[in-house]
Parts: sequence; structure tokens; C-alpha cells
Amino acid sequence: MTTKILKPARLDFHDHEFRYQLDQLLAWESVSDDKVQKTVKEIITAVRRLGDKAVVDYTCRFDRLTASSMKELTVGDQQLQDALHAIPDDQRKALETAADRIRSYHKRQIQESWHYKERNGTKLGQKVQPMDRVGLYVPGGQATYPSSVLMNAIPAHVAGVEEIVMVVPTPDGVINNMVLAAAALAGVHKVFTIGGAQAIAALAYGTETIPRVDKIVGPGNIYVATAKREVFGQVGIDMIAGPSEILVVCDGLTDPDWIAMDLFSQAEHDEDAQAILVSDDLEFLHEVEDCMNRLVLELERKDIIKASVNHRGALIHVPNLKAACEVVNHIAPEHVELSVADPEALLPHIRHAGAIFMGRHTAEALGDYCAGPNHVLPTSGTARFSSPLGVYDFQKRSSLIHFSAKGASEMGKVASVLARGESLTAHARSAEFRIKK
Amino acid sequence: MTTKILKPARLDFHDHEFRYQLDQLLAWESVSDDKVQKTVKEIITAVRRLGDKAVVDYTCRFDRLTASSMKELTVGDQQLQDALHAIPDDQRKALETAADRIRSYHKRQIQESWHYKERNGTKLGQKVQPMDRVGLYVPGGQATYPSSVLMNAIPAHVAGVEEIVMVVPTPDGVINNMVLAAAALAGVHKVFTIGGAQAIAALAYGTETIPRVDKIVGPGNIYVATAKREVFGQVGIDMIAGPSEILVVCDGLTDPDWIAMDLFSQAEHDEDAQAILVSDDLEFLHEVEDCMNRLVLELERKDIIKASVNHRGALIHVPNLKAACEVVNHIAPEHVELSVADPEALLPHIRHAGAIFMGRHTAEALGDYCAGPNHVLPTSGTARFSSPLGVYDFQKRSSLIHFSAKGASEMGKVASVLARGESLTAHARSAEFRIKK
Repeated sequence: MTTKILKPARLDFHDHEFRYQLDQLLAWESVSDDKVQKTVKEIITAVRRLGDKAVVDYTCRFDRLTASSMKELTVGDQQLQDALHAIPDDQRKALETAADRIRSYHKRQIQESWHYKERNGTKLGQKVQPMDRVGLYVPGGQATYPSSVLMNAIPAHVAGVEEIVMVVPTPDGVINNMVLAAAALAGVHKVFTIGGAQAIAALAYGTETIPRVDKIVGPGNIYVATAKREVFGQVGIDMIAGPSEILVVCDGLTDPDWIAMDLFSQAEHDEDAQAILVSDDLEFLHEVEDCMNRLVLELERKDIIKASVNHRGALIHVPNLKAACEVVNHIAPEHVELSVADPEALLPHIRHAGAIFMGRHTAEALGDYCAGPNHVLPTSGTARFSSPLGVYDFQKRSSLIHFSAKGASEMGKVASVLARGESLTAHARSAEFRIKK
Repeated sequence: MTTKILKPARLDFHDHEFRYQLDQLLAWESVSDDKVQKTVKEIITAVRRLGDKAVVDYTCRFDRLTASSMKELTVGDQQLQDALHAIPDDQRKALETAADRIRSYHKRQIQESWHYKERNGTKLGQKVQPMDRVGLYVPGGQATYPSSVLMNAIPAHVAGVEEIVMVVPTPDGVINNMVLAAAALAGVHKVFTIGGAQAIAALAYGTETIPRVDKIVGPGNIYVATAKREVFGQVGIDMIAGPSEILVVCDGLTDPDWIAMDLFSQAEHDEDAQAILVSDDLEFLHEVEDCMNRLVLELERKDIIKASVNHRGALIHVPNLKAACEVVNHIAPEHVELSVADPEALLPHIRHAGAIFMGRHTAEALGDYCAGPNHVLPTSGTARFSSPLGVYDFQKRSSLIHFSAKGASEMGKVASVLARGESLTAHARSAEFRIKK
């Protein structure tokens, strides 16, 4: 008998300490390091003051390059097109299929301007427009994901953003052709091979070469995340992502190997990733644990999976699938798989989740690449109040108010009473000027 | 001849230093004070640890009260209804009219779930749902605005949020009946008379009495703003507001008294507020300046107006209205008035503004109270990337993915290629399990 290397926590819904144990398992707070924050502030100040020169200097230092100007850190259109032809055929075709599907799904998210007229001729509405310019951060080195380029750039492109500026660091000069190919397919307009806090600062404030953007999206390390928090307000930012999570709800009738591998598909991301299985079938939980212990041995990233499953993974026994939905809503997971006979029956009970994967065939991994919906999703319980990245994140609204003379006269009276109630006399008088005598 | 007390800056579009001068005038950064931050962190830690007790202690200390439990800091339903009947008739009616109009405008912002089916039976879409519970911060003391209660609470109520929790400090025990009346009309479910960082901490983490919310909205002082930034991630927050701004574009044919008072209606908010007039008629700019100097003498808040206009106000001469639109887009103002003969002709050129007030009759003040659209708007140029507060801020989305067996098999092949391209083997194998042999 071999020793099990994977030992996910075992929890039971009926245990009187269940909620406490679950909350302990979920607890995760991002490290806010004063030293990182100080460094990031210095970098931002230098980039604001010195522009290109600071960006080039930091890039040479941190990425071990020898560039002397931003020109050497700029990727031309031709290089993007070349990358598209340099990658293997099957990869290019897969990227194209994924890009097409992501584009066609996101087109359904476009929001249109609207207005209505009141009887006295007053017109009210909202004008919906794309942002002018958006920055996309793509991590370099180990975790360089072409799929992230598609997922971040295509919604901006579909929204009609005029200029999508991508930054991707190239430590030691190593550039990933699949990432450049994805940029070409996704409609990215400009690419600079810079990264870190210096890239975020350059996008937020602009330099001689790098245009100032209106919003910055995309994942990054702690320096990038800290810099994004720091420039928030100067530009828009997307959510700061926590570790990836999957919660699988299973009725015990899906192939346990499938479920084990679905859990691993999140656990392999990093040691803090969280994979949880919830089932009303206790025997099935045992089976899946056995499958996990067998299958993990075949996987390249087994050390990461081991750390993730043993520290943050769990198998949870619930009395029924309704209780499983309660667990889902308490956790508000990034991904939930409803691997059950009738997922539609559970759907009305799911209140909080970034993405809902319905039925036994819908592996979460399909959603990461080519289902169509975005793989940038709210983590760490933030699905309680936030949404997948979408076209709506690259559009913004302006209220439209056009009073007729009659409407302004009527409403002037109402505004006058309320403004005087708030002791704002100039407000009141400005409204009163429009009241017909 | 009297001395002019108001001296707004004079800028000319054709001046070669125009852009620089304008940027100097616009420059505004919120003060980030280490001492405030330290105090706020201590308060949050205490509230997380001690719950109600800490909230009661801080409230007694900061608001000079003598409460001994949260019960004494809770406003009952009856008290809300009583407030509605205690205020003067004209105020109640004005609040009711405003609430009705805000409600009917915001109902048009409700977003619905959607999905579509592909030929092989695969279903894709988004489930749109309201948040469970939302916190609304209302400042106490001087700047207590019932209109803000309506503007923040009604969109949440229209979205279908189950529980809207309002907090409003009552320094020295002074409570504003008009604010309570607005809460009753807007559908607020619970009211606590607490404020400051302790109220934000209580809403973000929950205490024995105060329920944990999913999002916190509403304006507040520097302690409140700092606390909101601090709990962001644990809960959602709205934008941190800067000082109020108005930019009026006028063709010189509106009554200059109207324009002067419209500028004052923002300038009277606070000394950092910004009021700017842009016109292609130089003579008109002089006229408005004269009107401002005459009218200001009649206003209660003339000292605030004087500080605001003399430090941050401006009269800008432009060669034509197209240039005026360029100025609008560069500033991305919170409010823009198009006080011209044909505002519809300018509208397509307005790219960035929180709210657009069309025509000579549409005083900005009408929008503050009863036009219908929200008065919580992006400030300090953030209209480049953000939107008025709306129902969409209280709804959130979950992606829906339901693959048919056939769809999962086809897409499994695509996902497999891409996952292996990213060296994520568990992702690949999870997808490959669904490929039909």
C-alpha cells in the first residue's frame, strides 16, 4: 500500500463547527508589504518625472537588458504578424478558433445609448461610449499566457476602444511568440516589451513614447498589483486578482477521474489555488480522493498540486444538493461546476459565482480557453459584488438631460424646495431662473 | 466703482501655453495622510475584533454621545415613518416627486440575464442578479443631503437588493428628519446612527448587530474615504469622489445671470469646487464676470464661492464651439452644460463627461435633485473611464456555460492545444477527458 500524497481537508455540513472550519480554509488576504509599496512609489515618481528614460533604465535593470531607448523596447506590426506565422499551425488555428468564439460571445455584451421623452418634451437618457485608450498588462517569464491576451484585449476591441496598448516584460530578452500572435489576433494596436511598476506608471501617466491610457487591465505580480492600486483614480483598473479557485458540486455520478482532473486544473495554477469538491455521496468523495492520488503522479506540476490540495483543498460532504448550493453561495467561488444530472434545477439557487459550468461535460478548462465567456473572473469571494471582465468594462456612460422650457419650469419648483432644504441657495436660484412667471 | 471680489482665471484657446495653463488649473490630488491612514487601520482592527462594543465606543467618543449599546444607535421603522410626517408638506411632496422620477429613470437601467444556444446544443450566457446587501454612507452634521439618500438608495432598491443598510452619524445627537424621510421614501431597510471609519468597518466585516454588506456607497470625509479604500476587496465600493465640477459651454446667447448662477451652483459646494465657462464670445465672458460679481453679494455662501472661483474658476475663450468640445473632452468634467441654440449638434463631439445638460433651460441644479438621472457622477477627469452611479452598480453577473457532449468534444481539442502550449497539463487532460473517442 502506497502512502497518499494528497490529503485534502474533510468537512461535513452537519458538523457544528462546519462554518468555522470552512471560513478558516477560505481565509486568504493578500500581503501588503510596506517595502514593496515604497519601491513602487519611487518607481512611479521617477517615471512621472523622467518619462522614457526612467522606463528604459528600470527595464534594463530589472529585466537584464541593454536597451538605450524606448525604440528598442517597441514591437512593430510586422513582428506581430511574423509571430502569427512563426507558431505551429495547430496552435495558430486553436488561437483563431478561441478568438472567434470569445469575440462572438462578447459582442452580445455591447451596451447601446438610450433615451426617452416625457410628455412635455423633456428628454432623458444615457450616452454609452467606449474608452479612448486602454492598457493591457501581460506577465512575462514563466507565466506567459496567450489566452489571457485574448481574454483581456478582445472585450476592449469589441467595445470599440481606439487604441489598445499592451505591455509585456521580456526578462533576459526572451519573447513568447504565442503571446505576440495572440496580440495580433486580438486587435492590439501597440506593444512595448516593458513590465513591472514602471510599465504601469508609464501607462497611467504617459511618457514621450508610451501614450497615457484611461484604464489598465491584466494580471501581474505583487509589484504590478501594488502599482495598479497606487494609480487607481488617475486611471481605471480591473479587480486585483487573488489565487484561482474551483468548487465542484457533484451528485456522485460523474466519472471520478474527470472530477479529480477538474480539481487539478485549478490546483496546478499555484500553491495558493483552491480546489473544493462538494457532494452528497460520501463514498464518491473517497473515490475521488483515490483518483486524485493516482492521477497526480502523472502530472508535471505535481508539487504545486500537492501544496495547493494539502493546504487549501477540501472534500465536503453535504446532506443534499440544496445544501451544496448554500455552500456555493457562502464561498462565492470564481468557478463552480455543477456536475450533476440536472444542473438547470440548481441554477436558480446559485446566487454568487464568477462563472457557472453546467453539467458533466462542461470542464472548467474549456472556459479558460475557448468556450467564449471571459476567464478573468472575480476571486476570493468578490463574486458577491463583481462580475467577469466584459465589454461593459471598456464602455462608460454619460447621463443625458434635456429639459423643455415647460419641464424646466415645473421641475425648477421641486428643485428649489429641495435645494433650500439643503441650504444651497445658488442651486435654488439657478433652478428658479427657469421657472416661468 | 466697486472692487470686483471674483476674479476667475482668463484663458485663451489660442494662447500657446493654453494646455499647460489649463492643466495647472485642473490639477488636484487628494491628500493621502499617513496619520489618517494609521488611525483608520486601528479603528478597523478594533471593530473586527470587538464588534458592536468598538462601534459604540468610537461613536460616543467622536460624536459626543452617551450610548451604551447598538440598540440606542438604531433607528426603528416607526421613527422613519414619523420623520416623513414631521417634515413640512412642500418638502415631503418635493422629495416624493424626486424619488418617483429617480425611480422611473433608473428602472430603464435594469439589466437582464441572457443566453444563446449554438447548433450543437451548447448554451452560453450571463446570469444577472442583484447583490444581497448594500451599505449606504450618509454624512452627518453640516453637509447632510437628503437628495444623496435618494440618489444612492433608489438604484440599489430598483436593482432588487434585499437589504439596504444606511449609516448616518449624529454628532451631539442631532438628527436630520429630512434625511430620515428620504430613507423611508427610498426603500432603506435599516438605519444606524453611526459614522466615520467605524461605520465603514462595521459594514465591511459585520458585527453582532450590523450585518456585513457586499458593497458600500456614498460620500464621506477623509476618514470615511480612507476606510473605504482600506476595505476595498473585502467589499465593493463606489468611486472616491473629488470636488464637484461644472463646465458650461455657452454661445453667448443665454441670459448671463443664468450662467453666473449655474457656475455658482457648483462653486458653493466647497472651496475646492471648480466652475469653468467656455464661450466663443469674448464680450459675453466679460458680461458673465460682471453678473457673477453682482449676484455673489446676495448669496449666503459667498465666501465659499469666492474661494472656489478665485482659486479654481476660469473663463475660457475659444474660437468656435468645436474647440469648446475639445476643451470638454480634455477636462472630462463631472457636469457639462451645453447652453447653446443647438445642443444636439454638439452632442456627437462630447466624448467624456459625467452628465450632459442640454440647452439653456437645463440648469445643472435640476439634475442634482429631480431630473431623474443620478447625481453621483465621476469627478476629477474620471469620466474618461467611469460612469454615473446606477442600477448596474448593484447588479452583478455570472458567466453561464453549458456544453453539450458534442460541443465539449469539439472544444476539448482546441483547449487541449492551447493548454499544452501554456504547459498546463491538468487543464489539457481535463478537457481531453471530454473528447469522444
